[in-house]
Order: sequence, then C-alpha cells, then structure tokens
Amino acid sequence: MSLPRVTVWNEFRHEKKNPEVAAIYPDGMHETIARFLRAEGFPARTATLDEPEHGLSEAVLAETDVLIWWGHMAHDDVLDAIAERVQQRVWAGMGLIVLHSGHYSKPFRRLMGTSGNLQWREAGEKERLWVVAPGHPITAGLGEYFEIPHVEMYGEPFDVPQPDELVFVSWFQGGEVFRSGCCWRRGRGRVFYFRPGHETFPIYHQPEVQRVLANAARWAAPVPGPAIGIANRKEPLEPIP
Amino acid sequence: MSLPRVTVWNEFRHEKKNPEVAAIYPDGMHETIARFLRAEGFPARTATLDEPEHGLSEAVLAETDVLIWWGHMAHDDVLDAIAERVQQRVWAGMGLIVLHSGHYSKPFRRLMGTSGNLQWREAGEKERLWVVAPGHPITAGLGEYFEIPHVEMYGEPFDVPQPDELVFVSWFQGGEVFRSGCCWRRGRGRVFYFRPGHETFPIYHQPEVQRVLANAARWAAPVPGPAIGIANRKEPLEPIP
Amino acid sequence: MSLPRVTVWNEFRHEKKNPEVAAIYPDGMHETIARFLRAEGFPARTATLDEPEHGLSEAVLAETDVLIWWGHMAHDDVLDAIAERVQQRVWAGMGLIVLHSGHYSKPFRRLMGTSGNLQWREAGEKERLWVVAPGHPITAGLGEYFEIPHVEMYGEPFDVPQPDELVFVSWFQGGEVFRSGCCWRRGRGRVFYFRPGHETFPIYHQPEVQRVLANAARWAAPVPGPAIGIANRKEPLEPIP
Amino acid sequence: MSLPRVTVWNEFRHEKKNPEVAAIYPDGMHETIARFLRAEGFPARTATLDEPEHGLSEAVLAETDVLIWWGHMAHDDVLDAIAERVQQRVWAGMGLIVLHSGHYSKPFRRLMGTSGNLQWREAGEKERLWVVAPGHPITAGLGEYFEIPHVEMYGEPFDVPQPDELVFVSWFQGGEVFRSGCCWRRGRGRVFYFRPGHETFPIYHQPEVQRVLANAARWAAPVPGPAIGIANRKEPLEPIP
Repeated sequence: MSLPRVTVWNEFRHEKKNPEVAAIYPDGMHETIARFLRAEGFPARTATLDEPEHGLSEAVLAETDVLIWWGHMAHDDVLDAIAERVQQRVWAGMGLIVLHSGHYSKPFRRLMGTSGNLQWREAGEKERLWVVAPGHPITAGLGEYFEIPHVEMYGEPFDVPQPDELVFVSWFQGGEVFRSGCCWRRGRGRVFYFRPGHETFPIYHQPEVQRVLANAARWAAPVPGPAIGIANRKEPLEPIP
Repeated sequence: MSLPRVTVWNEFRHEKKNPEVAAIYPDGMHETIARFLRAEGFPARTATLDEPEHGLSEAVLAETDVLIWWGHMAHDDVLDAIAERVQQRVWAGMGLIVLHSGHYSKPFRRLMGTSGNLQWREAGEKERLWVVAPGHPITAGLGEYFEIPHVEMYGEPFDVPQPDELVFVSWFQGGEVFRSGCCWRRGRGRVFYFRPGHETFPIYHQPEVQRVLANAARWAAPVPGPAIGIANRKEPLEPIP
Repeated sequence: MSLPRVTVWNEFRHEKKNPEVAAIYPDGMHETIARFLRAEGFPARTATLDEPEHGLSEAVLAETDVLIWWGHMAHDDVLDAIAERVQQRVWAGMGLIVLHSGHYSKPFRRLMGTSGNLQWREAGEKERLWVVAPGHPITAGLGEYFEIPHVEMYGEPFDVPQPDELVFVSWFQGGEVFRSGCCWRRGRGRVFYFRPGHETFPIYHQPEVQRVLANAARWAAPVPGPAIGIANRKEPLEPIP
Repeated sequence: MSLPRVTVWNEFRHEKKNPEVAAIYPDGMHETIARFLRAEGFPARTATLDEPEHGLSEAVLAETDVLIWWGHMAHDDVLDAIAERVQQRVWAGMGLIVLHSGHYSKPFRRLMGTSGNLQWREAGEKERLWVVAPGHPITAGLGEYFEIPHVEMYGEPFDVPQPDELVFVSWFQGGEVFRSGCCWRRGRGRVFYFRPGHETFPIYHQPEVQRVLANAARWAAPVPGPAIGIANRKEPLEPIP
C-alpha cells in the first residue's frame, strides 16, 4: 500500500516576523514537517497562507490525501471559501491533522461545530503526553508516555465534541491536563487534533512528535468507496404494498 | 426538579400554503407539539420563522432551556445571525431537539460540522423504529419498537458525526434503514436528532412520538455548572521550577 | 420523580483491622457514604462482605436501584455467584457506581471485559480532578476542577473499554494523569467508575466527592422499559415472499 | 507492511453431522474462509474445537495476529481456560473477528461484559447490509450496501456495549434491523463482530462477505507498542513536596 500524499499547510508569518522563530524553523514549520515525512517516504508538498488561494487550489487539494494544518496569529485571514473547501474535501475523504493553535482555525471549528475554547499559559513548562489508547495505530512505536521539555500549556475544558477515540492525555507542570490527541470522523474523512507545537519551541524537531505525525498521516489516509450524497430513491428496493 | 422551559420553533409555511397540511395541523405543527408538552407539565412557548428575529430574540432564548426545531422548505431564509445565536446557546447549555427535515437546517449543520446528507423517498411507506439502547432515558415507557404507518423514508448513509449515543434505528418497507434517534453533546448543551415527522402525515399526533419528544426534552435540560471559556491562566496552580 | 434506592456495599475489613482507618470511618466507609446520601433524600441501605451472601441477596438487589461498590483487599473473597448476580442485575437496569480500588473487583471486571490494570503509588500526593464534560449531569454544581489534598495515585494506561462518556481527568503531583470519571452502559444498566477514595484518607468526607456520588446515583437510576431477552421471532412482522 | 497472520477457528461440528452443511462447506467453514484469505496474501491457518486445546495452544496463539471465530452449537464445550487465553491474547494486542452465532461464544461474552442476547428467526429471508460509516477501512471497496439472499435473521435489541465504531446496519425482509458490523477495542486488541454467516447458507462464498473479512483482518492487526501492565510507580516522575 503506497503512502498517502501529504500537504503541509502553514501560516508562515511568525517565521518571517520573529527572528527567534526563524532561528528554529529557518524555512518555516511546514518545511521541517514536510522533510521528516519525505524521509519516511511520504510524498509531501507544502502550502502557505500568502500564496494565491492560500496554496490550496482545487487542483492541489485533489492531489492531497492528508492535509496538515498549522495556524495561529492569522486565523481570520483564511478565506471562508477556502475553509469551506477544506471542510468539503474532508467530507469527501481527505484526512486532516490539526496542530496546536489550529484548535481555533476555521476548518477545525467548522468541522467540530464547537468553539474550540481552552485555557492557556505561556510559561515554557514541561508537558508529559500519556498514551491512553495503547494499541491505537497513532501510538505505534511509542512508549507509555513522552515528554516535551518546554511548551505553552493548553488546559481543560477543551470545547470539542467527545472524540471518537481519545489517544493522548497531557500532564502539565503547572497543574493542568489536556486531551492532546483526539480522533473524529467527519463524512468520509478522518480528523486528528494533536496539541504539541509552538512557534518558539523546537517541538517539530522532536522524534516522538515526528513519529506521531507520521503515524497519524498513515491513519488518516482516505479509504476507497462510494461518496455520501443526497438523492431521491424514488424506486424502492422492495415492493411497497 | 422542575421541568425545563421548552420553545417549539416551526417554519410555519407549509401549514399556510397547503390545505392538506393545515387540515392535520390547523394551528401549525408547533402548537400541536407545544400542547402535548404543556399537558405533561412543561412550560412551552412557540416561535416561528416569520416573526421578528424568527421569534428567537436573545430574551426568548435566555428563557429557553430546550429548543425544538422544525424546518423544511425555508432553511435558507433563516438568518445566519440567528443560526449562530442558537449554536452559541447550545454551547452555553441549552438543549436542542432537531426534527425530521431539520437535518438540513443551519443550526444543526453548524453544530454537527457535516453535510447532513441522506437518501429519501416520498411513498407513504411504513416505518418501524427499533430501540437499540434499552435503558436510555429517551426510551422510557416505550416497547421494543413502535411503528408509524405512513412516512417519508430517510435512508443511510446519513452524514452526521458518529452519535455519542444511538437510541433508535428505523426499518423501512422499501428496503432502507436509518439511525433515527441520535444524541450528541456540543459544548455544555445536548443535541437530539429525531427522524419522525412530516407535514402531510399526522405523526406528531401519535402517542409514541409524543412520548419520545417529552423524554428528550427532559434529557436535554441544562445542567448547572461553570461556562467553558477561553482564558489565560497566567498564574499556574502549581509552582513551575 | 422520587430518588433511586441506593445500596452501599463495602468490604468493611480495613476498618476492623486498621485503627488508622477506623479513626476516619468509625462505622465503615459504607455508613459515611450512606449517611450523606440519606441527607440528600436517597433511601440508602448498606451491605458488607462478611454478611450472608455478602448482604446482596436476591431480595436486597430487587430493592436496589443503584449499587455503590467499595472493595480493595478481599476481591477474591467475593463469591463468583454474587459477582454474576450483580452483573445480571446491571444488565436488567440497576445502576452501578464503582469506587477507587473497585477497578479490580469481580463485578467491574466482568462488566468491562478488560483487566482493569493501572499504575499506582502511595505517596499521599495531591490530585486535581478536571471536568472534561461540562454540562454532564454528574458534574452538576461543580466548578472547573476540585482538589483532593492527599491521595493514592492511579496512573494511565487504565485498561478499560473506551468510556461512552468521559467526565473527569485527574492531574497528579507526581507526574501522572488518569481518566477518573468514566460512564458506560451495559445492558439496560449504567456503570460509573469514580477514582477517588482510599481507606486511610478522609476522601468520602469531602463535599465535592459527596456531590459527585449523589449526582452519579441520580444519573444511574433505572429507566422503565422492556427487558433485553433472547427470543425466536418465528412470526415475522412483515410477510416474507 | 506485511499482512497479519490469521487463524480461522471453527467448531467444525455442523459440517460433520449435517450433509446439507457439508455440501456447502465440504472442508469446513474454516477452510473456505482461510482459502480466500490466503488468496489475498494473508498467512492463514485453521484450528477447530475437537483438536487438543481446541487447536489454540499458547504456541499457536503466539503466532496469531488475528483470530477469526465461528461457533454455534457447542459454545459450552469450549474450555473456560481457552476462552480466557483468547481474552488475554486480545488484551495483549491480538485482533478478534467474531462471526454470526459467535455473539454467544465464551470469548466474545467475556470481552463484552454483556449477555449477547438478540432476537432471531430462521426463515431464509433477505438481508441488506447498509454501510453507515463510509470511509471506514472495513468498508473499503464496497458500495452503499450489499445483499445476502437467504439468511437467518438477527434482530435488535442486540445486547452489546455501544460499539466504538458502528460500520453496518442490516435490514431484514421480515421487519427487523440489526447492528451487523461493530468495532471495539479491549486492552491493546481490536474486536470486530460481523453478523453474516450461517451453516446452511453459502454466505462465506459471497465476494462482499469475503471483502469485509479481509478488510477486517487488516484493520484488526496488532500495533507495536508497550504492554498495559499493573505496576507500583514508587518513584514519582516529578518531586512531591
């Protein structure tokens, strides 16, 4: 089975404005992510906010099996039409992996139907992600937990629909917990929210984080089968007396 | 525990245009539904599309614990601002019961994040609703199944998120099945989709259907507790070394 | 609606052997729990391991709407026949609330189908229970979280089926997390696992813990309706050509 | 990724006693199933009730990634020790696919914690299986539904825990519905219940049924990662003041 074609989408603004961010991700977070996916054999391209159609033309999405989304400071700059296009592609079967501050992105909120609210703190504290679904494909090759030394904290209550499958729960040094890895199906497509990531910490360079993203990209690959349409089945399958 | 305050919302257009519908629901479907709820002790009011703000002002919603929604031919006439208001009230804890063709209504689609697509047929065939969650509060007082003699068929695939709890599955004479009673939580509120109902069949006069709606109104009542906000927890609960 | 009849079951051995435990629960944990339930209006009785049939005769269970279970050091002394009787009563609609070390009890393991394994530590550390399902009836009247100053830690992975509804997630001072409040349906009955509790900490004297148990007892009350049987439907409901 | 090693288990008694069954499955149902799996590239072996240890020695199970189970008339002849061994292998990560009358088998009931009760009728009526989870790996390559011309009917209520994922719902000519394809996780392992199959109908010769079983075997393959143990984490991960 060949690996799914991944498009890594990034706002790509922090990296241009903030030298601290540029030092960690000189070519942008999207390139860092795309590179380790390519190293695992995934055909991976990138797209960014300031390209035409945010780099997500119909043609690009038609060749995308799994879309990875990183946004933070410019959610509002994403055109509604593009957010809707992403949503409809998920309905049609495309996988979507939403990272960190993407909890507030237009595509994620549209697909969830909830506010995406949460609590946060920027103190550079330690996070420990516990696997609560051992045996789930997204956890392949991990241990019982892994740690990220310095993070922005996200705390409960996290306003999302109850996940179809809950994979990770985070512990934070400052006293909070968070459902850090959540799976849902929407239409024919799969959605995975993964909490780790931040512009000023080198989180996407960390091997466990890369392992999860590669696992999730495999898990979110589309499955062949019929579309979900709307249709008048005028002719019944069985006689109606 | 007192019963929740219910608002029954109806497009109320079929009844005015179609004498066949008016014969079944002379005061509108909303009045038929509100009446049996009142007879069970619920404080129940009504609201309709052509009232100002569709009858769903901030003041009305502030006094609504559970909103029942019937729409069909005029989904697009519902203002986005009112659909968003309903969504936000659900997030804040209001229960929402969506009936039949409401699978395509703006509030339901916004809360689900899916298309709401399904298959349909208007042949007046028989439907049999099977209880698949015996012991669920919404099934209180029912038998193993109940029948509706003449219905519009709705068939799978039904494009909704997997329900948190699946309560009814329908059998149709013409050969289809449907997940006819589905529960979700969105934010602090509960949503129940219930398939039965149609403008040209006397379905809301049927005692089992009335029983389900009264059960669902009880089940969907708000629960007191804190809001789900967004906040910077600058001060950690525990010392961060 | 009248409140469900509760039976509080306790091993009641720690209290007799260990003066430290007896000092906290002079009449046994079951009496402490039954007392605050009675104060809320629940008809509450108690039963203990060393009574005939462990105090859980057919007659007692027939008058029990919700059973609360505390066991720890003597799980193996519970007769298989009584564990099976409890399981079958849950199938028939009785609610079951399993406390703390009851994750290893015979009735709970039989109903879950999993090992109930977890990690633990007795260091008297702090636990903070976060509400992850605001709006759920079991959280009524709580804030965003509550703390227990000194507990035995339970850590993930917790080997249970994915809960139908996850209500609480705990943070522990020593670095672990735990799904501390989990809901399942089994047959017609509801099961709630609630982590807090220990024989040498005064946890069942704490108001938030008492609030959760009273809420859970209401939530777990049986709902009237048909039994789930096995039957040969020789006569089809519809003609088979 | 190589395909999982499958063991197909069969009671293999109907085939020996009943010439009608032997005519359909001359080498037993297990051989029919194993053959089409081998044709898809799966390493597939078989095991039957009357072999020593029912053919499920520790050695055989250690080399089994996915176990397929068919039993009907002799559930009680399965040794408790072997049923427990199967359960523990699932906890450790082995996939389990339970067919048709296996809803009453010892391993399935132990893993579910419910009675497995249902309604049934042997009238040779038509069944139509609707896909309710388009995009799920188990539905790969199917259409919106498929039919089996002559079956034993199974009807709701089906006494199982709410599935983690519901994949198929069946329509029956005689008026019933059934949740025909259900997914659960138990410990590290995955369980799929699939309704079709009967000793006197040639159901396992049907291509759609074979497609589902091959899909399910892929889906149920174990995922590498840590075991779920019980351990005293005496040393906290973080200092406890």
